[in-house]
Amino acid sequence: MLTTTEILHQVATGQLSTSEATQLLDENQTAALGFANVDLSRQQRNGVPEVIYGSGKTSKQIVSIVKALSKQTLPVLTTRLSLTKFSELKDYFPSAVYYESARCMTLGTPPLPKTNDYIAVVTAGTSDQPIAEEAAITAETFGNNVKRIYDVGVAGIHRLFSKLDIIRGAKVVIVIAGMEGALASVVGGLVSSPVIAVPTSIGYGTNFQGMTALLTMLNSCASGITVVNVDNGFGAAYSASLINHI
Amino acid sequence: MLTTTEILHQVATGQLSTSEATQLLDENQTAALGFANVDLSRQQRNGVPEVIYGSGKTSKQIVSIVKALSKQTLPVLTTRLSLTKFSELKDYFPSAVYYESARCMTLGTPPLPKTNDYIAVVTAGTSDQPIAEEAAITAETFGNNVKRIYDVGVAGIHRLFSKLDIIRGAKVVIVIAGMEGALASVVGGLVSSPVIAVPTSIGYGTNFQGMTALLTMLNSCASGITVVNVDNGFGAAYSASLINHI
Amino acid sequence: MLTTTEILHQVATGQLSTSEATQLLDENQTAALGFANVDLSRQQRNGVPEVIYGSGKTSKQIVSIVKALSKQTLPVLTTRLSLTKFSELKDYFPSAVYYESARCMTLGTPPLPKTNDYIAVVTAGTSDQPIAEEAAITAETFGNNVKRIYDVGVAGIHRLFSKLDIIRGAKVVIVIAGMEGALASVVGGLVSSPVIAVPTSIGYGTNFQGMTALLTMLNSCASGITVVNVDNGFGAAYSASLINHI
Amino acid sequence: MLTTTEILHQVATGQLSTSEATQLLDENQTAALGFANVDLSRQQRNGVPEVIYGSGKTSKQIVSIVKALSKQTLPVLTTRLSLTKFSELKDYFPSAVYYESARCMTLGTPPLPKTNDYIAVVTAGTSDQPIAEEAAITAETFGNNVKRIYDVGVAGIHRLFSKLDIIRGAKVVIVIAGMEGALASVVGGLVSSPVIAVPTSIGYGTNFQGMTALLTMLNSCASGITVVNVDNGFGAAYSASLINHI
Amino acid sequence: MLTTTEILHQVATGQLSTSEATQLLDENQTAALGFANVDLSRQQRNGVPEVIYGSGKTSKQIVSIVKALSKQTLPVLTTRLSLTKFSELKDYFPSAVYYESARCMTLGTPPLPKTNDYIAVVTAGTSDQPIAEEAAITAETFGNNVKRIYDVGVAGIHRLFSKLDIIRGAKVVIVIAGMEGALASVVGGLVSSPVIAVPTSIGYGTNFQGMTALLTMLNSCASGITVVNVDNGFGAAYSASLINHI
Amino acid sequence: MLTTTEILHQVATGQLSTSEATQLLDENQTAALGFANVDLSRQQRNGVPEVIYGSGKTSKQIVSIVKALSKQTLPVLTTRLSLTKFSELKDYFPSAVYYESARCMTLGTPPLPKTNDYIAVVTAGTSDQPIAEEAAITAETFGNNVKRIYDVGVAGIHRLFSKLDIIRGAKVVIVIAGMEGALASVVGGLVSSPVIAVPTSIGYGTNFQGMTALLTMLNSCASGITVVNVDNGFGAAYSASLINHI
Amino acid sequence: MLTTTEILHQVATGQLSTSEATQLLDENQTAALGFANVDLSRQQRNGVPEVIYGSGKTSKQIVSIVKALSKQTLPVLTTRLSLTKFSELKDYFPSAVYYESARCMTLGTPPLPKTNDYIAVVTAGTSDQPIAEEAAITAETFGNNVKRIYDVGVAGIHRLFSKLDIIRGAKVVIVIAGMEGALASVVGGLVSSPVIAVPTSIGYGTNFQGMTALLTMLNSCASGITVVNVDNGFGAAYSASLINHI
Amino acid sequence: MLTTTEILHQVATGQLSTSEATQLLDENQTAALGFANVDLSRQQRNGVPEVIYGSGKTSKQIVSIVKALSKQTLPVLTTRLSLTKFSELKDYFPSAVYYESARCMTLGTPPLPKTNDYIAVVTAGTSDQPIAEEAAITAETFGNNVKRIYDVGVAGIHRLFSKLDIIRGAKVVIVIAGMEGALASVVGGLVSSPVIAVPTSIGYGTNFQGMTALLTMLNSCASGITVVNVDNGFGAAYSASLINHI
Repeated sequence: MLTTTEILHQVATGQLSTSEATQLLDENQTAALGFANVDLSRQQRNGVPEVIYGSGKTSKQIVSIVKALSKQTLPVLTTRLSLTKFSELKDYFPSAVYYESARCMTLGTPPLPKTNDYIAVVTAGTSDQPIAEEAAITAETFGNNVKRIYDVGVAGIHRLFSKLDIIRGAKVVIVIAGMEGALASVVGGLVSSPVIAVPTSIGYGTNFQGMTALLTMLNSCASGITVVNVDNGFGAAYSASLINHI
Repeated sequence: MLTTTEILHQVATGQLSTSEATQLLDENQTAALGFANVDLSRQQRNGVPEVIYGSGKTSKQIVSIVKALSKQTLPVLTTRLSLTKFSELKDYFPSAVYYESARCMTLGTPPLPKTNDYIAVVTAGTSDQPIAEEAAITAETFGNNVKRIYDVGVAGIHRLFSKLDIIRGAKVVIVIAGMEGALASVVGGLVSSPVIAVPTSIGYGTNFQGMTALLTMLNSCASGITVVNVDNGFGAAYSASLINHI
Repeated sequence: MLTTTEILHQVATGQLSTSEATQLLDENQTAALGFANVDLSRQQRNGVPEVIYGSGKTSKQIVSIVKALSKQTLPVLTTRLSLTKFSELKDYFPSAVYYESARCMTLGTPPLPKTNDYIAVVTAGTSDQPIAEEAAITAETFGNNVKRIYDVGVAGIHRLFSKLDIIRGAKVVIVIAGMEGALASVVGGLVSSPVIAVPTSIGYGTNFQGMTALLTMLNSCASGITVVNVDNGFGAAYSASLINHI
Repeated sequence: MLTTTEILHQVATGQLSTSEATQLLDENQTAALGFANVDLSRQQRNGVPEVIYGSGKTSKQIVSIVKALSKQTLPVLTTRLSLTKFSELKDYFPSAVYYESARCMTLGTPPLPKTNDYIAVVTAGTSDQPIAEEAAITAETFGNNVKRIYDVGVAGIHRLFSKLDIIRGAKVVIVIAGMEGALASVVGGLVSSPVIAVPTSIGYGTNFQGMTALLTMLNSCASGITVVNVDNGFGAAYSASLINHI
Repeated sequence: MLTTTEILHQVATGQLSTSEATQLLDENQTAALGFANVDLSRQQRNGVPEVIYGSGKTSKQIVSIVKALSKQTLPVLTTRLSLTKFSELKDYFPSAVYYESARCMTLGTPPLPKTNDYIAVVTAGTSDQPIAEEAAITAETFGNNVKRIYDVGVAGIHRLFSKLDIIRGAKVVIVIAGMEGALASVVGGLVSSPVIAVPTSIGYGTNFQGMTALLTMLNSCASGITVVNVDNGFGAAYSASLINHI
Repeated sequence: MLTTTEILHQVATGQLSTSEATQLLDENQTAALGFANVDLSRQQRNGVPEVIYGSGKTSKQIVSIVKALSKQTLPVLTTRLSLTKFSELKDYFPSAVYYESARCMTLGTPPLPKTNDYIAVVTAGTSDQPIAEEAAITAETFGNNVKRIYDVGVAGIHRLFSKLDIIRGAKVVIVIAGMEGALASVVGGLVSSPVIAVPTSIGYGTNFQGMTALLTMLNSCASGITVVNVDNGFGAAYSASLINHI
Repeated sequence: MLTTTEILHQVATGQLSTSEATQLLDENQTAALGFANVDLSRQQRNGVPEVIYGSGKTSKQIVSIVKALSKQTLPVLTTRLSLTKFSELKDYFPSAVYYESARCMTLGTPPLPKTNDYIAVVTAGTSDQPIAEEAAITAETFGNNVKRIYDVGVAGIHRLFSKLDIIRGAKVVIVIAGMEGALASVVGGLVSSPVIAVPTSIGYGTNFQGMTALLTMLNSCASGITVVNVDNGFGAAYSASLINHI
Repeated sequence: MLTTTEILHQVATGQLSTSEATQLLDENQTAALGFANVDLSRQQRNGVPEVIYGSGKTSKQIVSIVKALSKQTLPVLTTRLSLTKFSELKDYFPSAVYYESARCMTLGTPPLPKTNDYIAVVTAGTSDQPIAEEAAITAETFGNNVKRIYDVGVAGIHRLFSKLDIIRGAKVVIVIAGMEGALASVVGGLVSSPVIAVPTSIGYGTNFQGMTALLTMLNSCASGITVVNVDNGFGAAYSASLINHI
């Protein structure tokens, strides 16, 4: 596939007519699959290629989109992909890697991190791990170093303090918590790097599938905390990667 | 006013007829004021006399109820009483004391605490003080020692740790916090006495007038925490007093 | 496993180097299982050892955590454990006891209650029983006497009055109710001990999975009532045990 | 104003043309005031004449509507009328009576009750009185006997039991309560007449302006209870009057 | 089983000691089944015997409760009983009748209605039928005549008008509607008997499982409408029966 | 089946008695199926025949209603019909066509569009397609031209701009979006035809099954947007068809 | 101010340089006022010029924006403008007209309607009038005929039927209702033109400031109804005008 | 005031005893004002000194806290400070600067930005300006360059595109929007820097004081967006500053 620059060069040299070039440029921007218009210019616009949200898409649709994206750039990341669906995909992409806890599939090798800077992924409890792994795999796929600090919730706050140095050393911190989500506030009060908080849907009763943790994080008495949607480990890692790459 | 025992004694000795006694016993249970049936047997049933919730009552109504209660027992506590309303009351009760921050009035001297046990009243921020004072004055009026530990929220968690010994020494701890209310979880993870959490309506936006702090407290990952209604400093102190008097 | 005191003694006598001692003290506080940091100092901090919340953990994870905790203290309590999951666990812990209605497993013998004081566990209806049993088993595992008073809701209030003496005799009362949860208010108005109210998710339509009972309990016109999360029988028993042990 | 029967008679006797009759019949059904189409056939359709909801209407509008209605039927009831607004109206209707606590105005004498049957209006607390008076005045204006039983909430349940005979004697019972609204369930379990429950907006925090009492009443474990909107004393009395007049 | 009167008679005649009589009277009020305290005095207190809410009870529990109740009174009504559960019950109660659409079981013959008065059960749509049948069967079991007027919602309002006479002839009207529930208001504006409105959980999206219909009914611009919980056909029929029997 | 005009004609000519005619006219308006009163006069009142909402109806009920409607008018549209249910229906209606993605069945040929005017159906993402197809099939069944513009959400807004001409050319635009639903506002700001926005239940966490998209659409800063219920592709197409046919 | 065509013409004829033209074209699209970027190309894009939402803007800001807009097009409409604010504006715009009930100001004469087609504005109650007037004035300012049908709510449904012909004759119907908003469904079932429903914030208690009416309208069992935000009379008229002008 | 290093130095040289040093170190961490424990170590922990949230604090309290903070570091920022309250403060701090639109006061000169990097503050509408100014003043006080791009909401999306280069050039973008908040998604799809979205409480009806914009931002289909509480311009700027200073 020709890049935009190559297309323009061929126009300038007369190898392509302007109407041919227009169509090629269009195809460079969007892959029209009928059921989907895959966004091929996202890397150029946003610095990160399009990522496939697997939930709610059929295996067949995912195959088409992965193929369209992988023609242009690698690695291709698919999130929210169940093991069942992956088992239907793996024949099409024999080199793909599946991360079960994270429910993610990657095709192609992630770029090597350019520095020793790292993103800290911190969780409150054991059950927050799947979201944490979604964040960690996303960040690693985007070329970041990641350090995992799991199960350090405030019910036993000494567990957090024993890991404080490694958290403080991160360029950006992702805090992942369900239940009441208090860990975000405590970490926010102890570090000088930006904190991205991810509420998880872990809890029962008045937890309301993560709403309580979300509200806690939005109303934190500590500053420097921004928040993403419930269970959105991917989104937190996406923003963290943008920050870590500055 | 004759006590139940005295009435029965006078019946036994023929000083009172049974029908006279029945009416007196009825009057001992309830003071019928027309607009209100003041509960006079609460001390006997609940171990604590009825307390007047001043909000939504006229000054005139409060005067009548205070008078009815004070005939039977002292001190009489009135909560949620604005300064304006108190100024209309004080001529009727020259010996009454008004606590402005707590919005409480007491008539009569509280009983002396029988032990050195105390209730710790802990707040997250400066703005939680009125609710904390409502709790503290209520507890003191019921004959408890109270220690106030204010403005030790988790945004600067060293402030909490420097007061931890005094909090751990309490027989029961009241934690009062608005915003995201994370202080309750942190305290709950550090003490071995029962914690009663009071969410306050301090905050804005998605705080929803205290709902966020309430939800945080109900969903705490730490155990040993029970919760009362938003801004209900009185209720927390009432329960804490029952526990402290065990 | 050496206690903190023993470790310090061995340091003083030169049997352990300070760096060896530091590591041992750390291990005394937390068992790092990779997926979890089991809190081993909770008994010391909170007076009650860590309890395992079984829901959302794999059988394998529970086995590891029970083993780590049981090395240090007994009994070990696991709550929210389905019968299916227990059947996968019982070979690892042949002496464990499973309480089906309560969905709890205990390993090791509970301490004998030190007094005749008891906790009353009161329910409104037949369907509240599982939560009541979770509370009762938790309290018994923590070394408390428990008296069960079931199905005495206000639709037939004579059932409550016929049990009033036994409820009034308790040092602390747990009231468990779904539907509209009115039982908590009625009990609160009749006893002089602290009441801990547990809303259950029993109901339909505008019950909103227990929210109605929760709101009722938080807004009770009776005093002396504190509240825990919907269906949180464990939490109520935890706090009740702290109070009963005063 | 001619009745429908009179109009038809005059048509039959040739005193009116059919087109004149059509217009008169139309005017008998609706008084077109421009800003309002006053419903004049409600008495005939619903057995009760239209009642004016004063809130959100100007004094001038109320004057016009009262005049239109009073031409056809008396008494005319206006609810939710502030004292200020009434003072602007009373010159127009010198014989009107204003009930301050109920915020109601009546013009014309209510019909005498035809039997000794009565509606019991029962409240939980002092602050529920305005809604109770709205219900009582409405019922009396519609020709019912009313017995008021105020301030008998469950925090001091002996107050309720001492009034139980009078409540049980009613043909229909209106229970009015704010806070957690538990009184409705308790009364519902004790009487054999239909109960209409009115939640009031009395309370704070998680009371949500009456939502808690409303939910309690909708989810009552006792049967025979139906519910109206928050603070809708008028609506409860309207239905109670229909039942009482059966 | 002896009635209260018989017991008292035998005491008077010396056939029973007072302690024997006390226990018998107690048993007359409540059947203590361990998991349940069946309310046996409800007929006496409320005029209607206890009804079994089948949902959330095991077949075994239902068998015990039906037996306990049927010793004292017949018919016994069980609501919210799935076909599956009924098939487990029918061997115990061969004469029981099961109403599949209504999900109700009755044991014993309902009393014959004493008058020609009837309850109209009106629905808006086809899908509201199960709730309507629950209401109709309940009312018939309690000895009422019932007329069913189904699928007359306001989208085709001529269907309602063609049945208006039969609806107007009822002593009390039950209106059952899902979606937006507008039928209640329209009927309320057209009849002079009390209307009990039942919102159903029929709908999708912002219907919120019946909340929309509930809110519509609570806020009706027509008067004379009271409301029960979502899908509570039983509760509507219970109140309607009380009214119809006046 | 005779039309209203034919019936009246036969009355005039004496072929039908008035009572026969009344019944026939009644049957022309409503097909009384017992469980349903099918509205046969909707075409005449609303310009569009009744459409069957398949969800919550049994196959047997649908067969009866389709038969009743098809006697009077064709095509007959059934929406929200699962593939399973269709497979039970197809023997009854061999000529029926089933649209799997749209979950719709049509019986009979749609009328040909009378003009070249078209409705644009625009979606934000791949997962919105089923709702879009429900809208498109509905519109086509009602005799409209439809142009589908799918997967042009604002995350890659160039996809929208490349289709802007076709959208601007529509007489009415249906915008279908889940997640945050921002596409409606952007389209609304760019076109001069009326926009009907359909929120879909695509999303997770704080999406609340489409509530977020609904709120976005109701609060759009762009004008000319009206909104229907979540996932209501049918309703949007119904209104769009009315507009397109003007 | 030069139109786009004039500018391009002057470029072609050399009267303007391209850079001068670019700036002029830019100014034709947006008036940069510092605090606001007034959208001057809306007429061209949307067929309707920008309208000023007065609420939350200072009088000074409104003066600037009206001036900027009126340079390009007339009339200029300002909505949600209080009488107080208008009194501060009228010296700047002596020819402006203020509609007090509608809270709208117009500057310049509306275009004459091109046909006899009209928009029907229908309200349920007296208190809905301000929103209805906002809709009516907006529609008239955009060059539409409007017919007002006020106070025909379903509590007295004969009022609606007596106006049905005029409503059925409209090209598009706006239905405005508070309380339970049932009028929209009833009208929707009776007309064949598109209906735009406007919920108003009229009501109390569980009306939730118009949420009940909104939900009713979104869940209508009648088809052909689309909905706008609570109290958004302007938005309904905007869409209605687009439809009426087709 | 001695720094930590100076204190330790004086201990080492014997100028301070260890107990004197402990107290001084304590005072360096917290200024105990009775009503508040001002956090003096936040600069050291979080890289940013404590900022005073003016709302809900008395002028007297603010004076004390500003004094305590200003002893240690400058500038001191106070947010949510009304003009009235500032007028009571300015005599105490004659050099303080007040920003009326931002409702902020600064005392002391902000540090000069060290690079040309800047934060873009982008708003959707005129009414979002106060929150935007809070963000901008906060960022400038923390030593950042800020570029303001106001009133470029999606209703007139050309306004955004004409400013796209300046937005794309920012190191971090703050997007501030009320109503439906769609601007955040559109910007998120067009830039490659992290976006922090601030919902504002601008809107009416179903806007729910900013909840709609918040939900939109949390559910954005574009990636790279994190969110703060409603109207929290300060919080967005705090995080943006941390990112911009990397």
